Amino acid sequence: MPLLDPDRLFPNDPATRKTARRLYEGIVDLPIISPHGHTDPRWFAENEPFPDPAQLFVTPDHYVFRMLCSQGVDLADLGVPRADGGRVETEGRTIWRLFASHYHLFRATPTRMWLDHAFETLFDLYKRLSAETADLYYDRISERLASDEYRPRALFERVGIEALSTTEGALDDLKWHRMIAESGWNGRVVTTYRPDTVIDPETPDFSGNIARFGELTGCDTTKWEGYLEAHRKRRAFFKQHGATASDHGHPNARTEDLPQAEAAALFARALLGDLTQEKADAFRGHMLTEMARMSLDDGLVMQIHAGSYRNHSPEVFSKFGRDRGFDIPQRTDYVRALKPLLDAVGMRSELTIILFTLDETVYSRELAPLAGVYPALRLGPPWWFFDSAEGMMRYRQIVTETAGIYNTVGFNDDTRAFCSIPARHDVARRVDCAWLAGLVGDGRVDMEEAEQMALDLTNTLVRKAYRL
Amino acid sequence: MPLLDPDRLFPNDPATRKTARRLYEGIVDLPIISPHGHTDPRWFAENEPFPDPAQLFVTPDHYVFRMLCSQGVDLADLGVPRADGGRVETEGRTIWRLFASHYHLFRATPTRMWLDHAFETLFDLYKRLSAETADLYYDRISERLASDEYRPRALFERVGIEALSTTEGALDDLKWHRMIAESGWNGRVVTTYRPDTVIDPETPDFSGNIARFGELTGCDTTKWEGYLEAHRKRRAFFKQHGATASDHGHPNARTEDLPQAEAAALFARALLGDLTQEKADAFRGHMLTEMARMSLDDGLVMQIHAGSYRNHSPEVFSKFGRDRGFDIPQRTDYVRALKPLLDAVGMRSELTIILFTLDETVYSRELAPLAGVYPALRLGPPWWFFDSAEGMMRYRQIVTETAGIYNTVGFNDDTRAFCSIPARHDVARRVDCAWLAGLVGDGRVDMEEAEQMALDLTNTLVRKAYRL
Amino acid sequence: MPLLDPDRLFPNDPATRKTARRLYEGIVDLPIISPHGHTDPRWFAENEPFPDPAQLFVTPDHYVFRMLCSQGVDLADLGVPRADGGRVETEGRTIWRLFASHYHLFRATPTRMWLDHAFETLFDLYKRLSAETADLYYDRISERLASDEYRPRALFERVGIEALSTTEGALDDLKWHRMIAESGWNGRVVTTYRPDTVIDPETPDFSGNIARFGELTGCDTTKWEGYLEAHRKRRAFFKQHGATASDHGHPNARTEDLPQAEAAALFARALLGDLTQEKADAFRGHMLTEMARMSLDDGLVMQIHAGSYRNHSPEVFSKFGRDRGFDIPQRTDYVRALKPLLDAVGMRSELTIILFTLDETVYSRELAPLAGVYPALRLGPPWWFFDSAEGMMRYRQIVTETAGIYNTVGFNDDTRAFCSIPARHDVARRVDCAWLAGLVGDGRVDMEEAEQMALDLTNTLVRKAYRL
Repeated sequence: MPLLDPDRLFPNDPATRKTARRLYEGIVDLPIISPHGHTDPRWFAENEPFPDPAQLFVTPDHYVFRMLCSQGVDLADLGVPRADGGRVETEGRTIWRLFASHYHLFRATPTRMWLDHAFETLFDLYKRLSAETADLYYDRISERLASDEYRPRALFERVGIEALSTTEGALDDLKWHRMIAESGWNGRVVTTYRPDTVIDPETPDFSGNIARFGELTGCDTTKWEGYLEAHRKRRAFFKQHGATASDHGHPNARTEDLPQAEAAALFARALLGDLTQEKADAFRGHMLTEMARMSLDDGLVMQIHAGSYRNHSPEVFSKFGRDRGFDIPQRTDYVRALKPLLDAVGMRSELTIILFTLDETVYSRELAPLAGVYPALRLGPPWWFFDSAEGMMRYRQIVTETAGIYNTVGFNDDTRAFCSIPARHDVARRVDCAWLAGLVGDGRVDMEEAEQMALDLTNTLVRKAYRL
Repeated sequence: MPLLDPDRLFPNDPATRKTARRLYEGIVDLPIISPHGHTDPRWFAENEPFPDPAQLFVTPDHYVFRMLCSQGVDLADLGVPRADGGRVETEGRTIWRLFASHYHLFRATPTRMWLDHAFETLFDLYKRLSAETADLYYDRISERLASDEYRPRALFERVGIEALSTTEGALDDLKWHRMIAESGWNGRVVTTYRPDTVIDPETPDFSGNIARFGELTGCDTTKWEGYLEAHRKRRAFFKQHGATASDHGHPNARTEDLPQAEAAALFARALLGDLTQEKADAFRGHMLTEMARMSLDDGLVMQIHAGSYRNHSPEVFSKFGRDRGFDIPQRTDYVRALKPLLDAVGMRSELTIILFTLDETVYSRELAPLAGVYPALRLGPPWWFFDSAEGMMRYRQIVTETAGIYNTVGFNDDTRAFCSIPARHDVARRVDCAWLAGLVGDGRVDMEEAEQMALDLTNTLVRKAYRL
Repeated sequence: MPLLDPDRLFPNDPATRKTARRLYEGIVDLPIISPHGHTDPRWFAENEPFPDPAQLFVTPDHYVFRMLCSQGVDLADLGVPRADGGRVETEGRTIWRLFASHYHLFRATPTRMWLDHAFETLFDLYKRLSAETADLYYDRISERLASDEYRPRALFERVGIEALSTTEGALDDLKWHRMIAESGWNGRVVTTYRPDTVIDPETPDFSGNIARFGELTGCDTTKWEGYLEAHRKRRAFFKQHGATASDHGHPNARTEDLPQAEAAALFARALLGDLTQEKADAFRGHMLTEMARMSLDDGLVMQIHAGSYRNHSPEVFSKFGRDRGFDIPQRTDYVRALKPLLDAVGMRSELTIILFTLDETVYSRELAPLAGVYPALRLGPPWWFFDSAEGMMRYRQIVTETAGIYNTVGFNDDTRAFCSIPARHDVARRVDCAWLAGLVGDGRVDMEEAEQMALDLTNTLVRKAYRL
């Protein structure tokens, strides 16, 4: 029995399932457009083989190791690198066996769906991963990874990626993107401008970052005007490397539109490390409005990813550092928080601001009503904990009636795990088709419309929103 | 192919669909009771033909123009009247074509369902509205509107309305209702007492309103006691014009039960325009309790519509004024907010207070538990952004297990768009039958009960709650 | 026609229903493990017949009398005991008839499902309860209750209970548990350590409770260290009477991990009745961390039931006292609230802390992400207002994708109503099978896995989490 049901995620009712299948057949072969994610451009620049199975599937994937951690597995035993220099397991097969023996934990989770998709479609594995099949998997995957057909560029083409956005910090030199561009390879890999470390006064060594920002741009970043100019220059540099968007990961959705003198004063104190938490928050909020104004000039689409309480466990943070699965969503309010930004630029239809949330309760109460009226706003797809079959279905059911589908922007995979890209896009396409099939089934849209909507959700809306 | 599927909104599973259809057949011919809405009584008083298609379907309907605005269409190009005297499009056909060319935006939204229902059932249009069919629609609708069968009273009767409540401010002279009563026409159109402009100290020209309130009632509204007496008189005047209910649109659900001296002092300062935002909020909250006490005397049912952040965009407000689609829900808490009111009158079973929310998260956490125990409380139907197939289904699934259906009050259409009344009631009946069919299908209620419940939801509960 | 549909709560789609039925058949005969509830151990100690039908089904069950109260029935007429000594109805048949005539209020509620289950499976009643059948029910139930087969121990065995936890306050002498243990009866009834009245400084007569706590344990509870020692001794005493868990009912989820001197100072002021509300809250929060530390030593599983606003109506509280259906959930945040506790003990995998909530919005946003990474955390089943078919289904759909099922702990009936125990476990098993059947149907898990998961949800996870 294969790992993947060909009708997976389609409705159980036979007639509705048939409709879903038909809709899916119309879009299954469309290329993947991945406008937001965190894969490593170095892969495509150097095109070296991926390392062993554990380093491909376990060690870098917080979805995987957080679940094992929750059941008492030590992150060090999974090979997760330590920030404190402590010992971690390095033997790939040992890590893989530990992972395999806990694979049942992922039953009914999206992670299981992504992994099974990769195992079957990329590695021709058809028997469920378990302690018993661990070595079979390890050997098969290792063998394939060593072949040229599994190098990054070959995989990129094999899974049908048309365009892939990575995300780089404002201080990144983008050398991998340059190397890709100069290589003659015709895969489209673009960057995204992520300036958090030069915007968030609470970032470690903020003033050092700002100094480096000045060096890179030749601007006097000790002054407010020079600092803004540095952003402008850096955005242009990112655009030269294909960027069509910026991205902003803030703990909440607060925005401000302060008088320039006040913003400049906050910046000056930020450089001195002299801002209260509340003032740092105000500064971050103000910078979102500055970024939006720059977007009006340079056309970069603006993405706001708000609401994560990062590094919740200080014990894990001190041992293993950041991005270790301990980022927990928190309640996020948007109606008042976004008002300064919207007052400034919300009515500008030439601007696109894409909003993401980790607090599902705001979709029907706040985000769909806001995106359903402000021309500058669009809603990003369900993010992170909600990048899942149930999460996506809830999103469509909750958002559409108020905002329609044309204020949404298609799918983002947002992944660090390369092999999960086709799997994630496949899940999104299936869920959209399942949702549309239900609407056809109960007469809310007709089949011709549903076919158009499936195409729009998969392709048209992504291209348009991200200008790709 | 017609616009309307005869089985629309029924479950996809064939047996459950059959049950839903059977339940629906038992109630489809029941007259419409519309106990809360915002249609214009003048229509029925004067019985003049409705103006052109754009003025009937586009210009006055914030559901319609907010969606077009969200995609960059200028409200002025849709003929939305400007508050600042600026130019707006006035040619009906031009507006209609613009609307028609954006009709795809409404796919899978309730607005589309309402419009298609009117287009097909009232205007015999069977081909989807689009740029191509815009003129066909415009001509057909214009032609029909000119005929006597499409005058307001004829339509009122044709769509089977038994009773219709409009909503008038406390300062309204109710002349249209008087005119209807004196006309000999036997359609039942009643008013509702909506005193927000003489209760909310933050209303523009509050003291002017209070002065006018005194003139209308002959009470000394410069004094607290005279002010309360004016309410009593005005409520009696509204009752003479058919009112069975009052309605209160507050930004939150705060209530207070202040000592009379304290309330009087707040009122005195309100007249001077001298209340902080917090004190104005307290005064509004206290007045809800005063209104409830008056309801105990005069029997008016009390409706509380809480939680909207009105006129979110100052730019749109200054250009176009209020009710332009920029009212955004915000988080609303009820458990502590309603306590003063409930402490005062919550155990009085002869009183009916109907609660509405724009924050769905409170249904299972707060409103169903409250309405499931306090004799004075009932839950209004899903309101505004939730007056939709998915919103209604979620409401039934979330509310019923804690509060049952007998603490709910049937459907409200709450509309300004006359043609949407039968469409909205039809959607509500279909969703209720779909929900009940599911309960019959999985053995939670039997068919006989479901038939009774369908009748109760459509008719009995509305009549009882609204005393209509 | 019977009251119970053999396929109740299974999916409507025929194929999926068949899968659900097959899964259910695999677990229907498993014994009931009830690890958390509020039945009276005296029943099993004395094994006296249950009193009349009204006292079995109406008078003690807040789910029942709150619904009747919401429709204007006076609690006194239902025989609910008064705290103020006022008269209440005492004639069982009169109460029963009043209840029966309102039975339609429970349509589509879990209460109706539980009652019908007991009526049919324990009392062979097959015609719906109503005013007409009230006497038939009363006579049948009365007759059966008088027979030996309906004494508590016989019922315990008949419905297949393997283990039942009750909940006793820290000051309870546990004499009924001792009596059960010494009786030679082999039913397993264990206690749970519930120290709220000696932890919450806002409890009436807190200092009296602490004095009594000292007498019972021989510790000097006027001092902080003696007070902690008293807890340790009392926990050991509860463990001797079978306890495997403690339980903590707090108004919110706040935790603290204060320096010992600061905690001791709060305790000293608590004894003097000299804590502000905020300090009382801090003290309760700190004690959760102390309890967790004691759990690390003695192995008791820790349950936190947070978020209820108790005794919302002062009128009802003064007439009837506590637990009268007027406990209303309120918004509860966990991410920051639990941080002190988690910083202290969250990474300890030998500890089990089970979290419950009355605020559903936190499942996807906070609780599943937290339980999906912290080794010490597990999620309790949907509680109280959510112990229902829809509530359970939402819980599985919202929690599983982030936390999996292996960070959950099976079902709790949490009931005071003995006859509802088998009914509630049956509902939980059916909903789990319905959910799993859907996952099988759309290819998310295979049948073999689903069978294992059904067994785990019903049995394995409960035993493991509660160490039963």
